[in-house]
Amino acid sequence: MPDTHLAALDTEGDRRRSLVTRFQKARGRTAELVGPLSPEDLMIQSVPDGAPAKWHLAHTTWLFETTVLIPFSQGYRPHDPCFLELFKARAASAEGRIDGPVLRLLSRPSTADILRYRDHVNGAVLHLIDQATDGELDILAEHLGIAIAHERRHQERLLTHIKHAFWSNPLRPAYESPPELPATTPPPDDWVAHDGGLVEVGREEPQPGFDHEGPRHRVFLAPFRLAARPVSCGEFRAFVEAGGYGERALWMADGWEALRAEGWTAPLYWEKREGAWRVFTLYGSQPLNPDEPVCHVSWYEADAFARWAGKRLPAEAEWETIAARCDSVGNLLGTGYRHPRAGTYRGAGPWQMCGDVWEWTRSAFGPYPGYRQPDGLDEAVHGRFMSNRMVLRGGSCVTPFDHAGPWTRHYLRPDSRLSFTGFRLAEDA
Amino acid sequence: MPDTHLAALDTEGDRRRSLVTRFQKARGRTAELVGPLSPEDLMIQSVPDGAPAKWHLAHTTWLFETTVLIPFSQGYRPHDPCFLELFKARAASAEGRIDGPVLRLLSRPSTADILRYRDHVNGAVLHLIDQATDGELDILAEHLGIAIAHERRHQERLLTHIKHAFWSNPLRPAYESPPELPATTPPPDDWVAHDGGLVEVGREEPQPGFDHEGPRHRVFLAPFRLAARPVSCGEFRAFVEAGGYGERALWMADGWEALRAEGWTAPLYWEKREGAWRVFTLYGSQPLNPDEPVCHVSWYEADAFARWAGKRLPAEAEWETIAARCDSVGNLLGTGYRHPRAGTYRGAGPWQMCGDVWEWTRSAFGPYPGYRQPDGLDEAVHGRFMSNRMVLRGGSCVTPFDHAGPWTRHYLRPDSRLSFTGFRLAEDA
Amino acid sequence: MPDTHLAALDTEGDRRRSLVTRFQKARGRTAELVGPLSPEDLMIQSVPDGAPAKWHLAHTTWLFETTVLIPFSQGYRPHDPCFLELFKARAASAEGRIDGPVLRLLSRPSTADILRYRDHVNGAVLHLIDQATDGELDILAEHLGIAIAHERRHQERLLTHIKHAFWSNPLRPAYESPPELPATTPPPDDWVAHDGGLVEVGREEPQPGFDHEGPRHRVFLAPFRLAARPVSCGEFRAFVEAGGYGERALWMADGWEALRAEGWTAPLYWEKREGAWRVFTLYGSQPLNPDEPVCHVSWYEADAFARWAGKRLPAEAEWETIAARCDSVGNLLGTGYRHPRAGTYRGAGPWQMCGDVWEWTRSAFGPYPGYRQPDGLDEAVHGRFMSNRMVLRGGSCVTPFDHAGPWTRHYLRPDSRLSFTGFRLAEDA
Amino acid sequence: MPDTHLAALDTEGDRRRSLVTRFQKARGRTAELVGPLSPEDLMIQSVPDGAPAKWHLAHTTWLFETTVLIPFSQGYRPHDPCFLELFKARAASAEGRIDGPVLRLLSRPSTADILRYRDHVNGAVLHLIDQATDGELDILAEHLGIAIAHERRHQERLLTHIKHAFWSNPLRPAYESPPELPATTPPPDDWVAHDGGLVEVGREEPQPGFDHEGPRHRVFLAPFRLAARPVSCGEFRAFVEAGGYGERALWMADGWEALRAEGWTAPLYWEKREGAWRVFTLYGSQPLNPDEPVCHVSWYEADAFARWAGKRLPAEAEWETIAARCDSVGNLLGTGYRHPRAGTYRGAGPWQMCGDVWEWTRSAFGPYPGYRQPDGLDEAVHGRFMSNRMVLRGGSCVTPFDHAGPWTRHYLRPDSRLSFTGFRLAEDA
Repeated sequence: MPDTHLAALDTEGDRRRSLVTRFQKARGRTAELVGPLSPEDLMIQSVPDGAPAKWHLAHTTWLFETTVLIPFSQGYRPHDPCFLELFKARAASAEGRIDGPVLRLLSRPSTADILRYRDHVNGAVLHLIDQATDGELDILAEHLGIAIAHERRHQERLLTHIKHAFWSNPLRPAYESPPELPATTPPPDDWVAHDGGLVEVGREEPQPGFDHEGPRHRVFLAPFRLAARPVSCGEFRAFVEAGGYGERALWMADGWEALRAEGWTAPLYWEKREGAWRVFTLYGSQPLNPDEPVCHVSWYEADAFARWAGKRLPAEAEWETIAARCDSVGNLLGTGYRHPRAGTYRGAGPWQMCGDVWEWTRSAFGPYPGYRQPDGLDEAVHGRFMSNRMVLRGGSCVTPFDHAGPWTRHYLRPDSRLSFTGFRLAEDA
Repeated sequence: MPDTHLAALDTEGDRRRSLVTRFQKARGRTAELVGPLSPEDLMIQSVPDGAPAKWHLAHTTWLFETTVLIPFSQGYRPHDPCFLELFKARAASAEGRIDGPVLRLLSRPSTADILRYRDHVNGAVLHLIDQATDGELDILAEHLGIAIAHERRHQERLLTHIKHAFWSNPLRPAYESPPELPATTPPPDDWVAHDGGLVEVGREEPQPGFDHEGPRHRVFLAPFRLAARPVSCGEFRAFVEAGGYGERALWMADGWEALRAEGWTAPLYWEKREGAWRVFTLYGSQPLNPDEPVCHVSWYEADAFARWAGKRLPAEAEWETIAARCDSVGNLLGTGYRHPRAGTYRGAGPWQMCGDVWEWTRSAFGPYPGYRQPDGLDEAVHGRFMSNRMVLRGGSCVTPFDHAGPWTRHYLRPDSRLSFTGFRLAEDA
Repeated sequence: MPDTHLAALDTEGDRRRSLVTRFQKARGRTAELVGPLSPEDLMIQSVPDGAPAKWHLAHTTWLFETTVLIPFSQGYRPHDPCFLELFKARAASAEGRIDGPVLRLLSRPSTADILRYRDHVNGAVLHLIDQATDGELDILAEHLGIAIAHERRHQERLLTHIKHAFWSNPLRPAYESPPELPATTPPPDDWVAHDGGLVEVGREEPQPGFDHEGPRHRVFLAPFRLAARPVSCGEFRAFVEAGGYGERALWMADGWEALRAEGWTAPLYWEKREGAWRVFTLYGSQPLNPDEPVCHVSWYEADAFARWAGKRLPAEAEWETIAARCDSVGNLLGTGYRHPRAGTYRGAGPWQMCGDVWEWTRSAFGPYPGYRQPDGLDEAVHGRFMSNRMVLRGGSCVTPFDHAGPWTRHYLRPDSRLSFTGFRLAEDA
Repeated sequence: MPDTHLAALDTEGDRRRSLVTRFQKARGRTAELVGPLSPEDLMIQSVPDGAPAKWHLAHTTWLFETTVLIPFSQGYRPHDPCFLELFKARAASAEGRIDGPVLRLLSRPSTADILRYRDHVNGAVLHLIDQATDGELDILAEHLGIAIAHERRHQERLLTHIKHAFWSNPLRPAYESPPELPATTPPPDDWVAHDGGLVEVGREEPQPGFDHEGPRHRVFLAPFRLAARPVSCGEFRAFVEAGGYGERALWMADGWEALRAEGWTAPLYWEKREGAWRVFTLYGSQPLNPDEPVCHVSWYEADAFARWAGKRLPAEAEWETIAARCDSVGNLLGTGYRHPRAGTYRGAGPWQMCGDVWEWTRSAFGPYPGYRQPDGLDEAVHGRFMSNRMVLRGGSCVTPFDHAGPWTRHYLRPDSRLSFTGFRLAEDA
């Protein structure tokens, strides 16, 4: 994420300190996330395009080494020349038609080696920031910003992957113990209305974010209403128990095929034991809480539920228009609770627009009018996924946002269930 | 396609005659299309979700029998009770998890049996129209209309499938001999400009068409320009020869994967022999004609070409807005030339908006604002494909339109190359 | 099969006439076999490594053209140069990693073209035999002998493939009408004893046959008993109905895996309709005849049945030793009944050692002591299959033997069920 | 392996002590083998039907718990009831069509937990032996014998699997450091002759071993010669460099297919770096030693080499006949060198008949005459693999033999290369 907001800082010293803080916070957060994991836990990978936590630790470090230290730190010596090859992005490996190493087989280097690698690189980066001239600070900040954003994205993936890997163990181990939480009063089934008309959406410079989130542009909306809160586990359970997964007319053709190929009968991580639904979480297996937002559903499941409920998913411009006029932050990675929470009914809705669960929209991921794929920098890669993906909005309980805005766009294939994905309903007014 | 335009006819007698004419035209056209095929040709199927021509002959007949004759013709006796099962839609078979018969293995019933089946059903339908009371005619017309539209769709598929099956034969047999055609003057590389603003698009009752083509709604457009003609084979050859198929940065991630998995190096049906490009057509292998619209490219190839050319694909609302203000019909199934033609430069562009090649747009196939999936009738099925498909506009040289309008929407997966698919470029003004 | 028996003929004229007779008989038999098939039937192929009957017609002709006419007939002009490539052995195509044409898509050349091809080649071969000098006759006879043996092998395959293709049609069409047959008295459940000791087995020159059937060698046998007739459908039905297909302890590990992967619950071509077992035959679907030899069972099924019955399959040397001392010929292709028959109780057993069903043995296919793979000629290929195959003995009702002996060895993968394969039991004395 | 040799011991006390010794030796050896492995190493699994070392540790313990302690030790409390399900044989899981846990994902229980599990079970077994009455000792010895043999088999697998897992790591880590070894003088290229005739082979009671190694029976052999030592790396390198992997005529049809599907160009673990062949070993990557026996070749490669060399593989009866009259033990697991060694030329050959490498024979794995599959005990399982496997003889450098004899039979699929498999040549005299 380009560091545009740094521009506002007064002095070079402030900028330097801010950069150090952001770097340390991102790196420290990753270290904190692997705290509960044993060396063996760090090795497990349960989905083909996932990665073991150990690899996330090393690969994020590799990006700092190869895009910040090697280009900008004179005389920098790589921690271990083998690591330059071993931990590079797999996409890049795949490109050359040379298979990369099978990540889950890298028992060596050991966890201790990887942690030393992190320390080595952390020290070198801090030294580099310290030594940079004021003139060098700009370009350094830009590249550090990318690597920090990259590290944050991997934090979300790390928790997403370890959750599934633990789920694959019949013992259903917990990632950590659940914190004590105050009781909540779930918000009512309210709706927010909008009169439609010409609206403006999309990121505008200098707001922080990615290129595919702009340019800002006008969209014409018909009048609509948006649910004030995400669909809850209780509501989704009603759909499951009404036979929604067996009613073909509710499903997209591709969704029905996925449902049958994969044997879906409920959201991922739901299981029935002794007649009662349980949900697997990073805190282990828990009784289903009907007030929580439903999570780990594919777009197909969200879409089928909406059809069953006589509603529809919101278009992304509808979602953004409502989000732009409220300030509703839920539970994000920084909050420390690693599961969607039953919302707290405070003030008028909408609630939990940002946080708890990524929210599927009815919009396919595509370029905004006037969008041009940027050259060169890593972010440009988003433009390469503008087919076969659906847009999600809002961020989840394991998303490490620094500066999310209503314009933030995420995208996934419609059959994805691995991420913390939920949805809220909409309808024509 | 609902028979809404029938409402305009004056008398019952007119309606009856019109119905007979439309029925006979559709059925006769299919018979005409299999004219050049031997019993053996009628058996071949080269793509898994394709079908042999013989099955198209029988299955279209089956729909008249099961949705028109059996429900509405008292005392009707099915031609052969086995056929009711044998020729039903495969989707329906698949639904019950019972494999349907493998279509390409149905050497029995013989071709002669199938032709008798067609005659039997044709006679019974004409008799039914003749005997229907004025009150029955409405509902009959509605169901006949659906079965006629279905037969027409299968005409396009039949030619699409037989083309690929012949291509799979190293002898490259021709479906028929090419007609003599007058020389054409290819249209210039012109562009049509539009100032943008709020426009109205989508089908409006009582215009004929499908439910997913409406409701009519407003869209805001930025100023843009649309190419006056589709991209030509010559232009696409330049892309191929410039190494476009090897330049990863031009391709969607999924497109690049498809390209590598399938080994694409040029459009489907292109091959180089003795240094010269040839294109396989329903008239056999022909030297590449640089003036013809390029055809049988996937959306990924169209999108990559546009990026290479510094342009983009048009949004479907842009395409429709231009199409609505001109009357540009190219080569359709009724025209009798079964290959895209180099356009004729007549009057001001745009040219060939309708006909010759289906034109990919940048728009993912999704519901229009206010769209509700209809219940009951066959067309409802379109709403089931509103994921992972891209919109195409305009129709091709093997599309049997009766009443196409600028609002006509078609959709395919972005990796499809089997249909007669091309594209035209657009750019921001 | 080398034409060693020709050596016994007295004069050149006799040799010439004998060669003509054998050629015409083999070619005429193939033509006769496709008599009941329509052009559409000739196109169907239901197993990946099968072939349509049309291709068998053409490919056998191709071998005469390429290994007899082109090398030995001066001035011979190929019927169609394209055919040389189109109809060559697929193994050869595969070798070059170039996919051969997909056989089932060759609607062109037409059936009429193929029949003309056969006539052209037949005429040219007869002319060649007629014109050959006495000195040329030897080498010509050798190559013709190979091509004739090849044609005969393809006769068995043609019937095997068309049977499966018709089975794949829900209408279960019959290849031909069943002939009237006299009633038979099934033979009793007798056993033939052997005292064991050193025996000699294997083909000895100049007996006709293949290289892998020799050299003749000594084997030591323990005393054993061999069933006087093959296992019958009635006996096998008892195994099926006793739950044999569900009892894992009866099955080889690989067999159990095959059973589960393929969903075997009975022999191929068995199906239960309205409570009664029916068997699909070249005469269409027939009620199961309990007296007939069971057929279309894999080696795994034969082995499991034997274990269930407290017996075992015979070793091939045991089978051959018994076969060598009796003269028991059953139903072969020449007999004209294309299905295993319930044996006729005539004289002392064993019965049906040769004919009706190929009989699985417990012996893996491997080289005899002293075996050396020959160079050059087509038969050498048998030595390439000496892994993962089991030996079968005796020949089936669709095997076109000229000179079978007790030493005749056939081999198939243990999971094969497509051929007319049955078995008889053995036990230690 | 049934404990038949215990019968010879004089007193109950001797029997008890012998049992304790064998138990402790087997259990201690496994613990010793995982000594060099980190917790992360214990997690890795690189072949689908392999297992992580941690699972081998737990599963072998599970067999003692479920077949010895639970049935025979009154009042025994399982260490952890979950483990009874978690560590059971996968074949058993598969049988119920319920997928077992994915072994490589079991990061929990931790290594420390597993080691505690081993200690718990070890203590309970020793206590049980100590407390058993003299009458109980027989049945206890029988079941302990099976579990000890099972543990030993897993020792060989553990090293086989970890070797491949380390090979899959681009860093090519070593399992342990190589010991200092005295130089050897490789044995000459000698041959051992045999006159053939009737010989006796197979295990005879009360010699120790498995049921499929008997009964003892007579076989007739033609005169033959057997190589005095296994084929060496140097000899095999000559085959590789002469293009043996590209010459189709040398290969079985299935072997050629495997070669092409897998891309074989040399034995497993061979790689060329900077023009020189290196071989990956449990001691890391080493320069190829031409005097060592070649290892990790499939039967297809052994067979192709033999054909290229104008020889053949020995029949298993030939191998056994020669092995029975000499006393040639090479390098086994107990020896402590975990790689095939270049033999030492001491006395007359044959050399290394037992140890260093398993030796492929030309014999398919099948039942001996008179063989009957036993009921009940675990060993019975060998009879289930008597299809699609080839016999190996002799044992390898990681085989933990207690009482191998010339009759010892091992079997693998002909495409296996994972085990320490080599071969020696034979020829007809």
